[in-house]
Amino acid sequence: MKSTLLSRRDLDFLLFEWLRVDDLTQRPRFAEHSHDTFTGVLDLCEQLAERYFAPHNKKSDAHEPTFDGQTVTLIPEVKEAWDAFAAADLLGMELDAALGGAQLPASVAQAAFAWIAAANLATSGYVMLTIANANLLAEFGTDEQIDRFLRPMLSGRFSGTMALSETQAGSSLADITTRAEPRDDGTYRLFGSKMWISGAEHEITENIVNLVLAKIPGGPPGTKGISLFIVPKYLVGADGSVGERNDVVLAGLNHKMGQRGITNTVLNFGEGVFTPGGEPGAVGYLVGEPHRGITYMFRMMNEARLGVGMGAVALGYTGYLKSLQYARERPQGRPVTAKDPATPQVPIIEHADVKRMLLAQKSYVEGALALALYCARLVDLGDNQDLLDILTPVAKSWPSQWCLEANNLAIQVHGGYGYTREYDVEQHYRDNRLNPIHEGTHGIQSLDLLGRKVIQREGASLQAVGSAIGATVAAAGDIGGEAASLAAELDARWQRLVTVTTAMFSSGDIEAAMANSVVYLEAFGHIVIAWMWLEQFLAAAGRTGDFYDGKRQAARFFYRYELPRVGPQLDLLERLDRTTLEMRDAWF
Amino acid sequence: MKSTLLSRRDLDFLLFEWLRVDDLTQRPRFAEHSHDTFTGVLDLCEQLAERYFAPHNKKSDAHEPTFDGQTVTLIPEVKEAWDAFAAADLLGMELDAALGGAQLPASVAQAAFAWIAAANLATSGYVMLTIANANLLAEFGTDEQIDRFLRPMLSGRFSGTMALSETQAGSSLADITTRAEPRDDGTYRLFGSKMWISGAEHEITENIVNLVLAKIPGGPPGTKGISLFIVPKYLVGADGSVGERNDVVLAGLNHKMGQRGITNTVLNFGEGVFTPGGEPGAVGYLVGEPHRGITYMFRMMNEARLGVGMGAVALGYTGYLKSLQYARERPQGRPVTAKDPATPQVPIIEHADVKRMLLAQKSYVEGALALALYCARLVDLGDNQDLLDILTPVAKSWPSQWCLEANNLAIQVHGGYGYTREYDVEQHYRDNRLNPIHEGTHGIQSLDLLGRKVIQREGASLQAVGSAIGATVAAAGDIGGEAASLAAELDARWQRLVTVTTAMFSSGDIEAAMANSVVYLEAFGHIVIAWMWLEQFLAAAGRTGDFYDGKRQAARFFYRYELPRVGPQLDLLERLDRTTLEMRDAWF
Repeated sequence: MKSTLLSRRDLDFLLFEWLRVDDLTQRPRFAEHSHDTFTGVLDLCEQLAERYFAPHNKKSDAHEPTFDGQTVTLIPEVKEAWDAFAAADLLGMELDAALGGAQLPASVAQAAFAWIAAANLATSGYVMLTIANANLLAEFGTDEQIDRFLRPMLSGRFSGTMALSETQAGSSLADITTRAEPRDDGTYRLFGSKMWISGAEHEITENIVNLVLAKIPGGPPGTKGISLFIVPKYLVGADGSVGERNDVVLAGLNHKMGQRGITNTVLNFGEGVFTPGGEPGAVGYLVGEPHRGITYMFRMMNEARLGVGMGAVALGYTGYLKSLQYARERPQGRPVTAKDPATPQVPIIEHADVKRMLLAQKSYVEGALALALYCARLVDLGDNQDLLDILTPVAKSWPSQWCLEANNLAIQVHGGYGYTREYDVEQHYRDNRLNPIHEGTHGIQSLDLLGRKVIQREGASLQAVGSAIGATVAAAGDIGGEAASLAAELDARWQRLVTVTTAMFSSGDIEAAMANSVVYLEAFGHIVIAWMWLEQFLAAAGRTGDFYDGKRQAARFFYRYELPRVGPQLDLLERLDRTTLEMRDAWF
Repeated sequence: MKSTLLSRRDLDFLLFEWLRVDDLTQRPRFAEHSHDTFTGVLDLCEQLAERYFAPHNKKSDAHEPTFDGQTVTLIPEVKEAWDAFAAADLLGMELDAALGGAQLPASVAQAAFAWIAAANLATSGYVMLTIANANLLAEFGTDEQIDRFLRPMLSGRFSGTMALSETQAGSSLADITTRAEPRDDGTYRLFGSKMWISGAEHEITENIVNLVLAKIPGGPPGTKGISLFIVPKYLVGADGSVGERNDVVLAGLNHKMGQRGITNTVLNFGEGVFTPGGEPGAVGYLVGEPHRGITYMFRMMNEARLGVGMGAVALGYTGYLKSLQYARERPQGRPVTAKDPATPQVPIIEHADVKRMLLAQKSYVEGALALALYCARLVDLGDNQDLLDILTPVAKSWPSQWCLEANNLAIQVHGGYGYTREYDVEQHYRDNRLNPIHEGTHGIQSLDLLGRKVIQREGASLQAVGSAIGATVAAAGDIGGEAASLAAELDARWQRLVTVTTAMFSSGDIEAAMANSVVYLEAFGHIVIAWMWLEQFLAAAGRTGDFYDGKRQAARFFYRYELPRVGPQLDLLERLDRTTLEMRDAWF
């Protein structure tokens, strides 16, 4: 029985046939690896996903974490899954061998982790946040911080969180007010409250390592005055033992539409519930230099954004496979040209509109998975930061929008059943709805793309996309035929985007240029995914069989049904539409 | 404090300034009414909505109906709301005075009922289904059936359901297998099982009147052999008293993503749990003639489809108003041109992208409300069935798609808060997701539009839309200026749709023409809503003030951001795209 979490065939195609990640083993960092170790970790994560993560996905949705004022209780399966993942030595998949990591390429690690996310996004969140936390400490932490906090995370004794936002600040990190007062011994004491902290209170692990943004009094205003601190739930002794309770206290759990299995919290720091060392304040340890917290956090944030994108892909993908299975098994109705009620009903996959909904899902989830893995390989190659920078907001936002739409279609394929909690897809839709919000909303991603990435380094990132697309277009031209005609379509859309971008910024009207940043993000995203589909079309060139025919047909679908959406979007952008700017509050 | 359920100002504009429903009082049927009775019922429903329906909307979501094997338990507020609505004599709002109805125009009644739906769509479902049931019996029932079943529904003693679908049939009613065996006394005995029956088991009312589709043995195959029966939960004596239990038994409750407050059931008929009159089978009473059940049911179904559309509008509207209120009250961030972190944060409504999300919602919900009320007035006028027929699938499907998108944007405006159950909008999004599924899925609506309504009576319905749009365009031309330029845009889109439609059917390739019926439905829908916006633009012509400025700006938004979406859709339709038809099962 094929898995309905992800398609291993598709992962193998993307990783090994298209991205040729086996070639990475020629690099010193990955020289200890081989095709077999890569497929081994994919196998392992699939098994862990099916055995430990998928079975409690519904249960953890129906029995969300509860807080009795002292302790947060989760269903026991969450800890069992965590322990199994940690026992498999996977928390350090991408980290240096010197730290105890497996030094796997990000492309392979992300593909493997996608199994976990597809099986249970909520429980996978505890793991993902810990990995992101560990990766940050590996890069910016001191040796002592690494020993005291990172190593116990890798073994699964500790877990990690990232605590950025605050109630009054939301997306505007410049406005956070949590303060960190220096003490003579080099530590800090934190006072304040953080909002939306996932995985921040539970009993899965002995300790929780919170990475917290705060301001050291006297620093510069805005984001330039923000520093990063390690603020553990329990203080940790020099021998690694967990000791005194720090003054990090759960103020409450948020109750969400989906992803209910992972705690989402309000955390208070230094409210006086505990007085570690007899003093007020939550003990914090500065990471790196003062006032550079945003820079460090953005390293983690960029990784988290790619992770959110992959999570959205994973939910979209499993919903697609489940609706595909349903469509094959569910008899209902007859072909439009054969309405004799005496003939037997046909499986609904034979109806054109059901095929449309399945093809749309396929084009979204396989296109988005390709982008996610492409970005991960850019991390591995490390030679094109310009390109990775500009693709990151797309790799976060596009799957968050379109793999959610895939889940919407997966429900629709199921009809009324899809709306019931007896089937899986309604939960995927609820779980996925968070992805356009957290780790920077859709709007924030659009500002990052248009207001920062497009114009940074004199347009070097935009040019990097153009070069990469140009190379694909050229390769398609060499093949000719249908590949060349898809390439011509892509090239024309890209060139028009560049023309429009130039027109937007040459106007000098920054307010108008930025007013439709989301429209820009969405048009840009569709062109990028069209590029990913041409890449897959080329990778399938000359190959025969159902799998490759399916890739070709999905590529055609995307070019015929999806890519043309960008036409009206680019028209709107080019004329610097001011409709929203001219709208007044009183007119609503 | 303004209501965040609906905008009374907008309802007054649409009903009295645009549709001029006061003029209906010149017709004999509505001659007893006046502007004051119309506004009176709007006032009354707003009050009932705020007092009895809105307060338990969240509670009934969190505490869905439970079934202990004998009895279904609802939170008591549902019955209190039902009783209040019934006590206000509103269940017969549209029915003949001779039956005890208020003989209100549908346009006014639907507008009034929208308050109830916006406050609590689940609880309003019990009411809406009863009204639809009563309206059908008023038209097709015998005098005795009216006395025995309809009058107790109008007084609130009984409630009603419609039981069409079955597990193995889904949207394909031709395949239902519930059978109705005739008995010598003129009654029937029903045997079978029905699925997805909303409001079918509860203790709110003394009795439940199920309208059930079943086949009389020996009848024609397919839908032509379907008859309609009244199958009450309890038999009713000649004196109107509730007597013996009929063999209609709850097999189970479905557990839904949203609209959790209304029971959704599997009902078994004639399974032998009860033996009314000592005989097996559920007692049923034929409505009208044998084998005409589908015709009767479609009268009810068309009304229910307009009702579903209005329900979707109501949820979209309240989500819009709540996100608008949030955007005005929530300070966060600064204008793109003023990033000094020392300046105070501004309310998020000042950000262009938030305005875009609010304007999009406004254009969706006010456009859809206009269409819903326009259709209701067509019912009142009763002189253009061609037009009403073809607009019905649009008035059902467009709000179900785009007012759900409005709820999606309402969540996004709220950011993380919108994803929590502490705010209202996540529930609206879940509740609204049912609307593209029930009473005929999105795909079914598209087949109804393209496969039936567009071609019926030699294109008379399509021509009726053309004539109506033409009249609006001509009126805009008389005004000139911006109205004329919007009209030119609308006219061009409509003419293109007609050209494309002709090309699709003249090809003779029905399979290809129907393959993209959903794309057709969506393009058609956007053009219809653009027409509704031009109508509103004209109704606001020459009027000054914030309200009218808002209407004009929302119209502009729709023409600039939304209507251009149809360009690529019509291109796809015109070339009779066969991508989905060519896709093979094995390629997925």
